[in-house]
Amino acid sequence: MTRDIYISGAAMTKFGRHDAVPMPSLAQEAILGALADAGLGLDDPQAFYCANVYGGMILGQTLVRDLGLSGMPMYNVENACASGATGIHLARHALLAGIYDTVVVFGVEKLTQLGGGSIPLQRNDYKTDLYAAQGMTLPAIYAMRATRYLHETGHAPEVLGQVAVKNRRHGALNPLSQARNEVSLEEVMNSRKVYDPLTLLQCCPSTVDGAAAVVLTTKRPSAGSSATRRPDVRVRASVVQSGKREEGLEDILDAEITARAAHLAFEQAGLGPDDLGVIELHDAFTIAELLYYEAFGLCGRGEGPRLLADGVTALGGRVPVNPSGGLIAKGHPLGATGVAQMVEVVWQLQGRAEGRQIEGAKVGLTQCTGGGIAGVDHAASAVHILTV
Amino acid sequence: MTRDIYISGAAMTKFGRHDAVPMPSLAQEAILGALADAGLGLDDPQAFYCANVYGGMILGQTLVRDLGLSGMPMYNVENACASGATGIHLARHALLAGIYDTVVVFGVEKLTQLGGGSIPLQRNDYKTDLYAAQGMTLPAIYAMRATRYLHETGHAPEVLGQVAVKNRRHGALNPLSQARNEVSLEEVMNSRKVYDPLTLLQCCPSTVDGAAAVVLTTKRPSAGSSATRRPDVRVRASVVQSGKREEGLEDILDAEITARAAHLAFEQAGLGPDDLGVIELHDAFTIAELLYYEAFGLCGRGEGPRLLADGVTALGGRVPVNPSGGLIAKGHPLGATGVAQMVEVVWQLQGRAEGRQIEGAKVGLTQCTGGGIAGVDHAASAVHILTV
Repeated sequence: MTRDIYISGAAMTKFGRHDAVPMPSLAQEAILGALADAGLGLDDPQAFYCANVYGGMILGQTLVRDLGLSGMPMYNVENACASGATGIHLARHALLAGIYDTVVVFGVEKLTQLGGGSIPLQRNDYKTDLYAAQGMTLPAIYAMRATRYLHETGHAPEVLGQVAVKNRRHGALNPLSQARNEVSLEEVMNSRKVYDPLTLLQCCPSTVDGAAAVVLTTKRPSAGSSATRRPDVRVRASVVQSGKREEGLEDILDAEITARAAHLAFEQAGLGPDDLGVIELHDAFTIAELLYYEAFGLCGRGEGPRLLADGVTALGGRVPVNPSGGLIAKGHPLGATGVAQMVEVVWQLQGRAEGRQIEGAKVGLTQCTGGGIAGVDHAASAVHILTV
Repeated sequence: MTRDIYISGAAMTKFGRHDAVPMPSLAQEAILGALADAGLGLDDPQAFYCANVYGGMILGQTLVRDLGLSGMPMYNVENACASGATGIHLARHALLAGIYDTVVVFGVEKLTQLGGGSIPLQRNDYKTDLYAAQGMTLPAIYAMRATRYLHETGHAPEVLGQVAVKNRRHGALNPLSQARNEVSLEEVMNSRKVYDPLTLLQCCPSTVDGAAAVVLTTKRPSAGSSATRRPDVRVRASVVQSGKREEGLEDILDAEITARAAHLAFEQAGLGPDDLGVIELHDAFTIAELLYYEAFGLCGRGEGPRLLADGVTALGGRVPVNPSGGLIAKGHPLGATGVAQMVEVVWQLQGRAEGRQIEGAKVGLTQCTGGGIAGVDHAASAVHILTV
């Protein structure tokens, strides 16, 4: 018999520039917020999972040191932009095994202090530096995908811009989003080119800080003396997959790893794309959102723009995608992102998303992708499915 | 019912300076070695766990890229010097939960290329830099413990040196050890002072590279068609604990976190210190080995030197400690260490330790400790118990 895993608490900081706020304060705000949201104290969880990319060694222990923590296990997890989701995934293993019944997973990143060109992506691998020096950075790779997409489908570049317009509109409704203003299609298309055809407003901002945390537990939140009146959110599927290196994998529009992870997740949950009521996906660049529509089975190849045009994936549509604003509007502090996606879906499923609430969503999917440089394409993709 | 977890394959590179060998080659040698030792191919495990401290992001995926791996999950784990043991610990959770039945855990570090003062320990935390700049580095902290130990117990500094003499004697018997020559007590005591009373030969060398890997599985190795004739090694306990910050924790000779982890591990295994036939422990500095004797319950406070003098913890004694040479002789490539300890104990329990074989050992314990700077004291301690 498989145990049920619940998310009983969820919290995040505002994403944005937090120049005056040290990383421990961000992490602690998210952790204490998630514990309070679950009605728990600092000593109630039995373990902590810390997800981060750039913070350095034994980061989790350092971040919580000043809380006076009491010796419980801390696990530091990294999987590039999928770090947060990987933390949740590993925590679920321990809960399913009966090692713990309640744990905290938090993700944190301070890109304004630690990100950017000053820290190499891989310190072990000359190939990454070589490829990057030749221009094979993530924006360039996504721009190639976008170019190919427009070439193959015959769509105009504006279909990319529409993703940014939608997600910025969503972000404007989210008080925790880095970007809080809507942008017009014209503004998106006329913003500075980063890599053709991707303009600046089609790329997630790279100067952002933030933290997010969830409480994962095998104890049904609606039972017991500290019961909440909120619907129980269950983690119904948790999948992490890594990239393939094989001959013939030459279709750069095939988000193979994400499609594979989503397929496994649907199988695990016994659900399909038609069941989804809300999605938080990894729109690091506009083209990514269109490719992931296809990877999740929401539409066939080249049909994403139709979903956008029909409002299917906008708030008010059948399956809103990135109601939080997504990476493009809400921001993408790497280690925090996968956890923050989970926070948004929990709030949506429990009717706590206020000005951007989706009515009646019962099933939510989160997805994030890590890596993508120099042949590690992609290094990790994580898909989770939550239900009420 | 708890599943049994076996180690069906174990391998490591020689520890030492590998200036001409890139990190992927070290990792792959260990991984392929462990798989071959288990009679498995590259596609047989269902997931990989990569333990490392300094390598940078999505390290595991990068390291195995050129093996042509096929999309299986990769988890990157960090817990300072306890990273390798933490990888094994997390892998065990997934096996116990029935998520996988066979996985590879590998640890790797290339300190000659990436270690040293050029990379800050924590990039998030001004306190660490502050303390380190004032001299509160790990050798200094252990030297304070050593000073206090000699003061409290009345022992002469030579009791510390005896640890190095023993472990170097063991390492001389291990072809994979960095240091292969014995040293006399006089040589140890007369080597350059690092922090008084610790001399150079009482500190593990900081220029060392290496990798180690194990195959963890729920399938009994002695069953099935590819059965080995080796005794099955089971993982009977796996504990990771983090440090405490509490008022009154003022006894710097109390290895509280390790004692706590060992206590929990003995409880988990239903075994006690008297059952141990082999120990690989974290002798980063000589004093540490003496303190951990006490933490494991091998002796009372200040009684470690007696065990040494009586040869109890030397090869040929009742419970040999660090037959591999330990960190002091074999070397301490951080992420690899916890896995390499496991490799040594597996070989000892299966009678494969050749010139340094312990006769009749049925129960082995591995222990490593991560962190220790600036109040994160210690950040992690991991204890595993293996049996045949």
